[in-house]
Amino acid sequence: MKTYLECLPCLVRQSLEAARHATPDEQIHEQVLRKVLDALRAYDLRRPPPVAGGLIHRIVRESTGLDDPYRISKQICNRKALEIYPEMKEFVRQSPDPLGAALRLSIAGNAMDFAVHSRADRQDIRQIMTEAVSRHISTATLREFREHMDRATAILYLGDNAGEIVFDRLLVEELPAEKITFVVKGGPVINDVTREDAEITGITDLVEVIDNGSDIPGTIPGECSPEFVRRFEQSDLIISKGQGNYECLSDVRRDIYFLFKAKCPVITMDVKCASGTYVVALNRR
Amino acid sequence: MKTYLECLPCLVRQSLEAARHATPDEQIHEQVLRKVLDALRAYDLRRPPPVAGGLIHRIVRESTGLDDPYRISKQICNRKALEIYPEMKEFVRQSPDPLGAALRLSIAGNAMDFAVHSRADRQDIRQIMTEAVSRHISTATLREFREHMDRATAILYLGDNAGEIVFDRLLVEELPAEKITFVVKGGPVINDVTREDAEITGITDLVEVIDNGSDIPGTIPGECSPEFVRRFEQSDLIISKGQGNYECLSDVRRDIYFLFKAKCPVITMDVKCASGTYVVALNRR
Repeated sequence: MKTYLECLPCLVRQSLEAARHATPDEQIHEQVLRKVLDALRAYDLRRPPPVAGGLIHRIVRESTGLDDPYRISKQICNRKALEIYPEMKEFVRQSPDPLGAALRLSIAGNAMDFAVHSRADRQDIRQIMTEAVSRHISTATLREFREHMDRATAILYLGDNAGEIVFDRLLVEELPAEKITFVVKGGPVINDVTREDAEITGITDLVEVIDNGSDIPGTIPGECSPEFVRRFEQSDLIISKGQGNYECLSDVRRDIYFLFKAKCPVITMDVKCASGTYVVALNRR
Repeated sequence: MKTYLECLPCLVRQSLEAARHATPDEQIHEQVLRKVLDALRAYDLRRPPPVAGGLIHRIVRESTGLDDPYRISKQICNRKALEIYPEMKEFVRQSPDPLGAALRLSIAGNAMDFAVHSRADRQDIRQIMTEAVSRHISTATLREFREHMDRATAILYLGDNAGEIVFDRLLVEELPAEKITFVVKGGPVINDVTREDAEITGITDLVEVIDNGSDIPGTIPGECSPEFVRRFEQSDLIISKGQGNYECLSDVRRDIYFLFKAKCPVITMDVKCASGTYVVALNRR
């Protein structure tokens, strides 16, 4: 997906939020904004928005001298999600369709946007979860999803955010572990998962975890490590979590399941769905 | 009021809206946005936001070759407001406090934001009007306003937008015509009133109308014509309509009545009021 003109004001807004998240120093906020405006005026709009996201967060890290301004937030998100994990696990176990329940919960993890709901308590999380599992995903979609999982020999699971990764764990646990490789980002960017998050949340105990060698809040194979690219090409099915990964891979002709909640108006326009939709969309080879 | 960092993404968003309002040509939209990003990265934040607004709309006019992209919109806004004028006039006449009713309606005219509600029909306008006149403005505030109007010898009325100007006419009609000079912008900028709007809506038949020699969506005396500056300094009371004028004059130590609906989060923060408040605020010499 290209960067739409609407993305530009949104990216400027996000850069202010990120700067404020990183430091209370208003001079640095201003410095970040000016650098971002400078970077965006020459930005190649044919590139997907997460490339600009990567630029912005690199500017924030350079201007603040912090290599991971979201580290504490990510830890809080993971801890909150882990607190509720046993309850969710029990829910999946008792469901007549555990895979369907886990699939919905993994999208609910995306819907939650821990970055926004960093003050959400256990009750809030439980409420979102309850709402999530009542979401309609058609029987045909679920059947197709199951068939793809059965047929695939090497599944690459592209993780998204901290907190959400605990909900991903539920889905990973319903899939054949030997087929799955879970992918985290190569370096810190916003609240995206890195190896540390996979370790804390126990994903590393379940399946192989690799990083993609990139600090873009999405997955652009051309900007990732050769090792990731090799694995990307060898896999016969990709599970892509979150809007950022959708934005980067929506035009790639591979078997890719996109799982996310459509939150941004540009995405809903691109996907042609209503705001808030739980998207389970399949690109085909 | 200075330009807050929050204003920057909002200004980028506004420039896209303005470009789209002016032309369907997407290449021009992109060109406008890139020029605006370039202008904003060096913008002096000590200046009020309407200075940036002026820059943006100059970029839109230059890039589209249109000297007044909002001309038709403004005509529609004026026509719609004029259609309902007789009803409003009758309402003011029958009110136990005509000046108070006209004051509220003039703020309602600002609240309406014809630019946003360009598709509003007569019924919508009537509804906003009805809501407006029930708004609480304290007796003390109304008494003080009346006393200031009585005492003043030369009142400068700084107009704001098309459509709204018809509501200003109601207030002007309750004030002593010989004291009032109504001020329009020196050149087209967004939907701000120019001489044409004052003529169409009959303000020129009531009071003296001058322009300020500037195309900024606000009033910065230092950027206005010498003639306007002379009148600005000679007046002993200023009525300042709309957020743009507030942003430019909020730090000026003169007797200025600011009349507007607080719509933007930065303004509500600056004024320290709730969003949606009908502001009647007085700066003092």
